[in-house]
Amino acid sequence: MQIALSALAERLGLPLRGTDRQVSGVGTLESAGPDEVSFITGAKYAALLENTRAGAVICAEEFADRVDAALISANPALDFARLLELFSPPQGRFSGVSERAFVHPEARVAEGATVFPLAYVGPGAEVGPGTRIFPGCYVGEDCRIGSDCVLYPNVTLMARTVLGDRVMIHPGAVLGADGFGYVPRPGGGRDKIPQVGVVVVEDDVEIGACTTIDRAMLEKTVIGAGTKIDNLVQVAHNCVLGANCTIVAQVGIAGSCTVGRDVIMAGQAGIADHVNIGDGAVVGPLTGVRTDIAPGARMGGIPAMDYGTYMRNLSLAPKIPDLFKRVKQLEKALAALGAAPGQGERT
Amino acid sequence: MQIALSALAERLGLPLRGTDRQVSGVGTLESAGPDEVSFITGAKYAALLENTRAGAVICAEEFADRVDAALISANPALDFARLLELFSPPQGRFSGVSERAFVHPEARVAEGATVFPLAYVGPGAEVGPGTRIFPGCYVGEDCRIGSDCVLYPNVTLMARTVLGDRVMIHPGAVLGADGFGYVPRPGGGRDKIPQVGVVVVEDDVEIGACTTIDRAMLEKTVIGAGTKIDNLVQVAHNCVLGANCTIVAQVGIAGSCTVGRDVIMAGQAGIADHVNIGDGAVVGPLTGVRTDIAPGARMGGIPAMDYGTYMRNLSLAPKIPDLFKRVKQLEKALAALGAAPGQGERT
Amino acid sequence: MQIALSALAERLGLPLRGTDRQVSGVGTLESAGPDEVSFITGAKYAALLENTRAGAVICAEEFADRVDAALISANPALDFARLLELFSPPQGRFSGVSERAFVHPEARVAEGATVFPLAYVGPGAEVGPGTRIFPGCYVGEDCRIGSDCVLYPNVTLMARTVLGDRVMIHPGAVLGADGFGYVPRPGGGRDKIPQVGVVVVEDDVEIGACTTIDRAMLEKTVIGAGTKIDNLVQVAHNCVLGANCTIVAQVGIAGSCTVGRDVIMAGQAGIADHVNIGDGAVVGPLTGVRTDIAPGARMGGIPAMDYGTYMRNLSLAPKIPDLFKRVKQLEKALAALGAAPGQGERT
Repeated sequence: MQIALSALAERLGLPLRGTDRQVSGVGTLESAGPDEVSFITGAKYAALLENTRAGAVICAEEFADRVDAALISANPALDFARLLELFSPPQGRFSGVSERAFVHPEARVAEGATVFPLAYVGPGAEVGPGTRIFPGCYVGEDCRIGSDCVLYPNVTLMARTVLGDRVMIHPGAVLGADGFGYVPRPGGGRDKIPQVGVVVVEDDVEIGACTTIDRAMLEKTVIGAGTKIDNLVQVAHNCVLGANCTIVAQVGIAGSCTVGRDVIMAGQAGIADHVNIGDGAVVGPLTGVRTDIAPGARMGGIPAMDYGTYMRNLSLAPKIPDLFKRVKQLEKALAALGAAPGQGERT
Repeated sequence: MQIALSALAERLGLPLRGTDRQVSGVGTLESAGPDEVSFITGAKYAALLENTRAGAVICAEEFADRVDAALISANPALDFARLLELFSPPQGRFSGVSERAFVHPEARVAEGATVFPLAYVGPGAEVGPGTRIFPGCYVGEDCRIGSDCVLYPNVTLMARTVLGDRVMIHPGAVLGADGFGYVPRPGGGRDKIPQVGVVVVEDDVEIGACTTIDRAMLEKTVIGAGTKIDNLVQVAHNCVLGANCTIVAQVGIAGSCTVGRDVIMAGQAGIADHVNIGDGAVVGPLTGVRTDIAPGARMGGIPAMDYGTYMRNLSLAPKIPDLFKRVKQLEKALAALGAAPGQGERT
Repeated sequence: MQIALSALAERLGLPLRGTDRQVSGVGTLESAGPDEVSFITGAKYAALLENTRAGAVICAEEFADRVDAALISANPALDFARLLELFSPPQGRFSGVSERAFVHPEARVAEGATVFPLAYVGPGAEVGPGTRIFPGCYVGEDCRIGSDCVLYPNVTLMARTVLGDRVMIHPGAVLGADGFGYVPRPGGGRDKIPQVGVVVVEDDVEIGACTTIDRAMLEKTVIGAGTKIDNLVQVAHNCVLGANCTIVAQVGIAGSCTVGRDVIMAGQAGIADHVNIGDGAVVGPLTGVRTDIAPGARMGGIPAMDYGTYMRNLSLAPKIPDLFKRVKQLEKALAALGAAPGQGERT
């Protein structure tokens, strides 16, 4: 896309300061060329302005005089994201329902939905307008998919999965596989507990590549509106996640957890089953959560503890070998005083 | 499915107490309506019986008088699982071999097997009767799949993978990818060690979504009969897992481990290569195992230690900053007594 | 393949000692039969030579007299890998471009490339000679794939992904999915930051099953030449990995990390965002890295610390409950001496 800075300024609703020119892309302050637009979020990057070749920079008022052309913004990160939107055409140049897809005659695909070649849409499935289903996707029977969703390649939705509107699912993700549940057989062995519930994903959710969200045993596993889940995350059966949560890569959430809204879980954290996590709680990376977490609490470590305590533990961990030595020295010093360790107990 | 309670009681072999009626589904005590059946596993849920609207409840003798209709059971969890079986039709309404699948002319697909549209079955592959291969699956050349297996969508079986009977593989799982093995080249760099072994999965195994099980370098990686593996698990090349193991989500097992039967590994545990784990051992969540584990042992922590010790460690971890303070105080107190820390060593 | 030992010796450039015979496969010293070749890497396995039935053994000079036939090698592991190469035909018996693949008319597939049935190659994509694309793969628009690459089944390359030559990608891997980036909206909520960069994979890289490598927000995520990545690994947006790294299963690398060459990361390690790791550094299993690592450093633990300190910590962890007891005893002993803990502070 080729566009004049002045036209861009108008589309973004930002004042243009400096030279108008044609631009055709975006870049960092270091990499952008004269036909590209960059941005700066704060004073700590100001030194980069000296040498940037960017044709224009989205920036606060204070930086406007230091560049050839500035798009003045109160929130450069946000406005740069909006700019990227303009320069990022949606992936997959295809529209309509391909004859090389398999769309079951009993599926209902809305006008304006896209089904790529080599995708599968099963009987009874509903696909809303504006929704795009890439190659290799499987939409099981009786799934209901809202409008303007994207299922990138090789996504699997098992039967009866429900997606709201504007849900984006990255490649290889699996929604609605059976939960992991067995019941012991009296004579030995065990039986699989059929998992007859579903997965319900609310509006504006994004789900990462190769993430797995299991269907409930009964009822439903829920991902709340606006929640964003990164890659390779496991959400087990019967979990209910609230709205606007942020779940970073490789987190694992065991069965029947209840997670409030605006909860953040950093990478590789693990949550045991049946745990309740309050609104706005933050679970640090690599944290192991075994018990409920209060709203707003910030936790880290194994077991999860208050984040301040955890950070002190982190700084102390390398000193633990030395602590053992210090205790040994104390024991010897006490012994030298005639007070053998353990003696205290007898007094 | 609509069925009379009396008919259901007969099919499950359970005495019916109370009012016969038509039922058509299942639910929890909280959610079930008058045409649904629920269950109760023990006295701690008894309060829920007061308000349940369930049309019938599978329960022990003692609760029978507290509900409209009871199916008397010595093992309500097991009988409810059997009931779910009746109410859960298999996923994927399709049978036969689709003309829109790719089935190589040299593959042998048994009468009564199902190959969905968009599945691939390679040359020399054998598919047993009653086995169902969903869209997007890849069955490599010379694979052997027994009877009544299910390969859910987008499962990959690389060449020569062997599955027993009644194996269920969830979407996106990969069996038989190359093990991770290289040999250093004298002048620098390295060569890939070709992985010419296979994966063998015995009867009644279940494998979770996006789980990866690598083929052996030579010989075979084995998953023992009845073992259940959850989602996003890694089993590296040459591992041999025994029968009836339970491997929870995101566990990683490095190469050439030997795991006995009835072993449990909880979520996100990691096992180093060449470790032997005895029958009936239990590895706790987030545990890091570096050395062999005796049969029946229960281990937790990094490094894996006796579970009792580990649980004490868990409870002590938040108190470690305080321990450092206490040791510092002891050192000062001793110094005040004229016994400087370290003095003990000289006496 | 049936071949005479003498012919094999010539192809590998190794002297043959002992009886010539026909061989047709490979095995371990324990498993190999008279028509199979095995190997021995060192004296610690010498006892196995007594009972081996192998038709020939690749071994050092010193072991030559102890077997029927020996292929004398200065580096038996390397020569055995070369031998395996001879006995391991490439997977997937297919060549050419299948009519049952979907190859967009604007894609450019080189002569000598293979596109299996049920693969998808999008508009503007380039596929080099000798490259093989298995069923279920998705090659997005404008991808560029070099020569002699292998994309095993169900691999997804999102738009504009670039692969060098001889890149091997195992089943279910996802390259070029969106990075995980959002910007808060002033009134609440957040916007997705479009991820307009790409993934660039250099020559001779191997990427494991169900591994995910996200596209950059701007510019590129890079996997350096010769780097090997195992299964279920997460590489977030804007990471730059150097040449010849080894990244073991289930590692997670957060956004914008810079990793030098010859770096090793063991299983389940986690690297926080914006961390720089120097050439030749080694990150142990289950390690949590929060800060930069110097070249050649060897780190373990959470937080990552010097490996020696970490190993001492590992050995001390089971003794921590006892340490608490010892400190309590010391406190009592001191109290018995009239020096109450804490007293030191007042002197």
